This record gives sequence, structure tokens and C-alpha cells, in this order.
Amino acid sequence: MPLTESGRKGRLEAFSDGVLAVAITLLVLDLHVYPEGHGSLAQQLVQEWPSFAAYVLSFFIIGVIWVNHHALLALAARVDRVLMFDNLLLLLFVTTIPFTTSTLASFLTAGGTDARLAVVLYGLSMEGMAVSFTLMLRHMVRRGLLIHPVDRPTGRRAVRRFGLGTVVYPVVVLVGLVSPPVMLLLYAALTGFYITEQTPILPSAEP
Amino acid sequence: MPLTESGRKGRLEAFSDGVLAVAITLLVLDLHVYPEGHGSLAQQLVQEWPSFAAYVLSFFIIGVIWVNHHALLALAARVDRVLMFDNLLLLLFVTTIPFTTSTLASFLTAGGTDARLAVVLYGLSMEGMAVSFTLMLRHMVRRGLLIHPVDRPTGRRAVRRFGLGTVVYPVVVLVGLVSPPVMLLLYAALTGFYITEQTPILPSAEP
Amino acid sequence: MPLTESGRKGRLEAFSDGVLAVAITLLVLDLHVYPEGHGSLAQQLVQEWPSFAAYVLSFFIIGVIWVNHHALLALAARVDRVLMFDNLLLLLFVTTIPFTTSTLASFLTAGGTDARLAVVLYGLSMEGMAVSFTLMLRHMVRRGLLIHPVDRPTGRRAVRRFGLGTVVYPVVVLVGLVSPPVMLLLYAALTGFYITEQTPILPSAEP
Amino acid sequence: MPLTESGRKGRLEAFSDGVLAVAITLLVLDLHVYPEGHGSLAQQLVQEWPSFAAYVLSFFIIGVIWVNHHALLALAARVDRVLMFDNLLLLLFVTTIPFTTSTLASFLTAGGTDARLAVVLYGLSMEGMAVSFTLMLRHMVRRGLLIHPVDRPTGRRAVRRFGLGTVVYPVVVLVGLVSPPVMLLLYAALTGFYITEQTPILPSAEP
Repeated sequence: MPLTESGRKGRLEAFSDGVLAVAITLLVLDLHVYPEGHGSLAQQLVQEWPSFAAYVLSFFIIGVIWVNHHALLALAARVDRVLMFDNLLLLLFVTTIPFTTSTLASFLTAGGTDARLAVVLYGLSMEGMAVSFTLMLRHMVRRGLLIHPVDRPTGRRAVRRFGLGTVVYPVVVLVGLVSPPVMLLLYAALTGFYITEQTPILPSAEP
Repeated sequence: MPLTESGRKGRLEAFSDGVLAVAITLLVLDLHVYPEGHGSLAQQLVQEWPSFAAYVLSFFIIGVIWVNHHALLALAARVDRVLMFDNLLLLLFVTTIPFTTSTLASFLTAGGTDARLAVVLYGLSMEGMAVSFTLMLRHMVRRGLLIHPVDRPTGRRAVRRFGLGTVVYPVVVLVGLVSPPVMLLLYAALTGFYITEQTPILPSAEP
Repeated sequence: MPLTESGRKGRLEAFSDGVLAVAITLLVLDLHVYPEGHGSLAQQLVQEWPSFAAYVLSFFIIGVIWVNHHALLALAARVDRVLMFDNLLLLLFVTTIPFTTSTLASFLTAGGTDARLAVVLYGLSMEGMAVSFTLMLRHMVRRGLLIHPVDRPTGRRAVRRFGLGTVVYPVVVLVGLVSPPVMLLLYAALTGFYITEQTPILPSAEP
Repeated sequence: MPLTESGRKGRLEAFSDGVLAVAITLLVLDLHVYPEGHGSLAQQLVQEWPSFAAYVLSFFIIGVIWVNHHALLALAARVDRVLMFDNLLLLLFVTTIPFTTSTLASFLTAGGTDARLAVVLYGLSMEGMAVSFTLMLRHMVRRGLLIHPVDRPTGRRAVRRFGLGTVVYPVVVLVGLVSPPVMLLLYAALTGFYITEQTPILPSAEP
């Protein structure tokens, strides 16, 4: 007695939207100043600049994830258990972003091993997210869950292009091991690219 | 002047999705590291391994609860006050999961009475959830709230199978009193089983 | 260029469901134990019994608010600005419940002025909620926002009965000033009553 | 392979509703009292009056933002990438409100540079929100995303009137640099005005 497929997809989207909305809003909990005995407000705001930078960056990253999640599920005619699991995996990595963001903000200016470890942790959130997204599209292509099915080579090309992030994020992490500020700029550039990117995930079925 | 039944079911699902989405995302608040004076980041991450293990475990447990909630309500033609109350009971236990997860993570490696009590508390979240789910299906079967009504023996068998968790979780807790790590593996195996499980809750109405 | 009325009502419900879902789940943040140096886990759980009692109570209170909000809006054919404002007022008081619950749990066993003040604060959340609900129904009745309009005396009687809470909660607070445990039992009884209560808010339009 | 436009708009609204619902409810996390060793409950509540005032103010401000977001998107026939980005920008500023509210509450009575800086920070949340809203309407008017397209001068007038907040908030901040209490009253008055304001954003297409 299966769910009607459209109802199942609708609740998958509603649940994912909820998790993404909570995760993006929880980021603000890492912004805080202390009322007294911790220096003036101005001093605190200056010292906390990595928190503000990380806040804005992670906000737009989760925003772009939401836009992409959207675009990806719009291609799905139906949803099966494996896709629901892949989607949970994606949400698992996305909900770690408030944690890895806070860790990055705390250790970014510390230098040494701690800063490098924080860079790797943040990169793991990104890499996990990119891998999960790629698994979702690959599964949709292979199992014929698409509204407009595509032939094998087309599907494989689309998965490869969509999965580009899985090889880009490790490179960004490597850069971050050398220079965290350049890494922040790279993440910002990548996010800006995804925001303006107009290429559809799959070629249109219509010629 | 009753609600239209479909509207009532729709808002029950929307509210439950909201609570589940918030609960699954709040889990991340238990992951945290301290900027300084608490050892290096690497040391903290190693010491916090129970938090990370508990995070991943509870994330997938709530994820599976969401999938099952989904599948269960898809069987309902309509929703009455008792079902709404049973659903609140389910959500009550689910929203304790961030608390019992955090407690488990804090005391898992402490050993002694504290570790055992934390194991029992976590098990109570699971048992309460399993009992509430079973109450929901039993009520739906008995009160004829199903889309495709079933005869008494079929209904009773379905409730018994769906309610298996209510006897499995106490066993897992008993194991946990002896060996917490084996308990974590059992929970992981159970969650993995529920993720891949394809058996419908009720036999299809069609022969 | 007004919204289509059904769309406006739909988003009012979705937003309210979201706020209620977050508020009910945030209650769990008041449950916490400390890893070490604060006594054994068992001692902490025993000392924190007011937190657990208040958690369960407030959870079901917000649950009942959600059920009633549901039933009330099901009567509305359309939503105007005043109703949106009254609804915001309702949500304002509901979102204070995690705070007044936490305060009640902290001071319930303290005795003296502090305990009595915590009792009054908690009562203010309830009274504000009851008044807002009553304002909503009264406005719906007076402005003809109902799906099935009713005559004046019928409407007035319905508002009076629906607004009973506004005179009941102050009485419960008075009891709480004398005996907080009896007050908790009264709140629990009231919540149980509202959960099982089957009387429709308005008499059915059909004879 | 674009989304069906109505589905895209629906998910934009659902996501925004989610973020606004979480942000408005997170405000309550800034209300807290300490169980002991911090003075009596009455003393704490009196000392925390700025937190309560800021809570009520920011609650209604986010409430009004939700109502306006609503009214604005009701004008949109479809949603493009730029509008999604402008909407993310709006949500970015709205989610900072719990932080700037908490900062304002902490420093409002401190006087000196800290209080003035907190006033400016709070104003930045408001200004960013007003600018983002104006960008959204301007983009909708210019790119023909409206359900009922309007001619250039009409559109320009509507954007100018809708964007009035962008010049009003800096004035409120200037007042706040001199007298924070008068600023709070001005914000309250503005919010009250927007709640009762009946003027449609665009003139009706029908003569």
C-alpha cells in the first residue's frame, strides 16, 4: 500500500525545507556578545569578525543548497526509499554546518594545527553535501525516477557535471591549509557562481 | 462543524513534519568545541567522539521515524481526536531525543551507574516512540480510519508486526547495561534495517 | 490587489504551524544535565523533576493550542488584517511558554515570593493565549469571516463559551499561589479536558 | 528543464515561512532568568526589562515582515533566480534580528558608545531588511514578474512608496543615538502603522 508518489515527494520537500530553514536560522546562535566584563561592544565585534564572515558565508551556502535541492527534486517524477535515504544523508551534512561554521569561526585566526583542522572539518560538511547531492542525481538517473528519462551517456554526463563540487571542495580545503582568508574568498566565489549559474541540471527533453 | 478530514490530516502532517525537522536539527546544538583553555581542537574532537556517534545515530533514528510517520499516515483516510493525541504522544517522545542523546553522549564513557542510567533514558525515548507508533496503528485499525479497511485478524497481525520495536528496544537496553558500544551497534543495525525495510505496514488491499 | 483569500489563510496556518512546532520543540532545551562535578546523573534527574513535569505539561498545552488553532481556523472563510494581528498576539504569548515554563521549573520548589511570581508569569502566558484566542473568534463572528455565518446571540454564546479559559486561568493561578503542586494537577486536568473535549466551537449550521 | 513556476513560488514561500517562524521563535531564547545566586526573580525581571521590551518589539517586527512578505509575493506571477537571491538577502537580515535584538537589550541601558553601537546594529538589521524588500519589488516590476504588469511610472511610484522604510530607519537610528527610549517608541509606532496599513503595494489593475 504505497504512498501516492506525489504525496511522498511533497512531504520529502516539506521536511527538507523545514530542516534547511531551521539549520540556516540556527547559524545566528553563533553570533553573540557579552554584556560586561568582556571589553567594549566595539572590541567584541571586531574580535568576532570571523563569526560574522562565517555567518554570511554559511547562510548563502545553505541558501544555495536549498535552491539546488529544489531544482534537483523538480526533476523527480517519484521518490523511492534509496532517494529518501540519500536525502537524509544530505540533510545530515547540512545540519552539521552550524557546528563546523562555529568551529571555523573560533579557530580560523588561531593558526597552527587547530586552524587547519577547523578548515578540514568545514570542508567535510561541504564534501559530504556535494557527495550526497551527486548520489541523489545518480540514483534518479539510474532508476528512472526522472520526469523526462534520459539516455545513459546524457545521464552520466549530467551526473559528472553536477558532481563537480566533489572534486572542487577538496581543492578549496587544500588552499585553506595554506591560507584561510583565500579559502573564504574561494567559497564566496563558488557560492556566488552557484547563485548566478543558469545551466539546467539536465538538458531539456525538448529539442 | 468538523474540519474537512483531508485538511485536518494535512495539518497533522505539516505540524509533525515541522516538529521532526526542528528536533532533528536541534541535535547539532550538542556538538560544540571550546575556543581556548580546553585543550587543542584535535583533543576535544577525540574526547567528544560519543557526541559525534550519538549525533549520527539519533539523526538517522529521527529520519527513520519521519519515514515511518509518513508511511503510517498514508494509510489514514481520516484523523480523529484520539489519533491526534497519540500523535502528540509520539512527538513528545521524539522531542526528548535531543536531550537523551546529549545525556547518553555525556555519560556513555563514564561507566558505572551513571552510564547505565543514561542507557535506560535513551531507551525510554525509543520505547515511548515505539509504543506511540503502535497505539496509532492500533487505533487506526480499530476505528476504521484506514483508506482500505482490513478484517480483524489481518489488522491484529499488522499491529503486532509494526509493534515489534516495543519488545526489541528493551532488549537493546539490557544489552546496553552490559556493553554500551554493542548497544550503539545494535541501534545502528536496527536503524539500517528500518531504512532498507520494504514490507508494507498493511497487506495490500488488492489480491 | 488583495491576496486570494484561500492563499492568505493557507499561509497563516503554515506560519502558525511553524511557530507552534518550533516552540513545542524548543521546550526540550530546558532539559539538561551536567557531565561532571554536579552530582551523579540520578541525583540530577531527581532534582530536576520540576523541569520534567513542566516539560510534559507545556508540551501538551502547546499541543492542545495547536489542535484548537486548527479547529478555529477551519471555521474561517477568510482572513483579514485584524485577524492576522490577533493571531500574532496569540503566537507572541505561545512563544513565551518555553521561557515561563523554564522559570516555573526553576522556582517552583524555591517557595516564597519567587515561586509565587513564577506561578503568575506562567499564568500570564496562559491568560494571554486564552484572551488572544477569544479575540480571534469574536472578530471572526463580528466581521462575518465565518464559513457559515451565525446570528448575533449564537455568536455571542459561542465566544463566551470559547473564552471560558480567560476566567479559568486566573483561578488556577490563585490556587497556585497557595499550592503549586495542586496548580500543576489543575493544568494537567484542564489540558486533558481540552484533549478529549468534543464540543464544536460553533453549533453546526445544519439543523 | 525549469520548475513549474507555481511550484517554485510555493517552495520559496514555504522556505521563507519556515525561516521567519524559526527566527520569531528563537527570540524567546534571549529571555532567561537564573535559578539562584543572581538576586530574586522579581529583581531579575525588573533588571531584564530591556529584554522584554526588545522581545515584544522584535516579535511584532518579524510578524509584520511576514505579513509584508506575504503581500509582496502574492503579486508575483513567477519567481526567477535574482528574486530568489534577493529573498535570501532579506532572510539573511531577518535572521540577524535575534542577535541584534539581544545586543540591543544587553547594551540599551549601558549608555555611552556601547549603547549607541547597539542602536546602530539593530538599525542595520532593519535597513538591510527594508533595502532587500525594495530590491524584490523593483526586480518584480522591472522584469515583468507581476501577475498584473504595470506601466513604468506606476511601477516606479510603487517601488518608491514601498521603499520608504529605507529612508525612515536611518532617521530612527539617529533619534536612537540621542534617546534610545524614544527610538523604541518610534519603532513601535512604525510597526503599529504597518500592522494597520491598508494601502495595497500596487494600485489595483482594475479601474
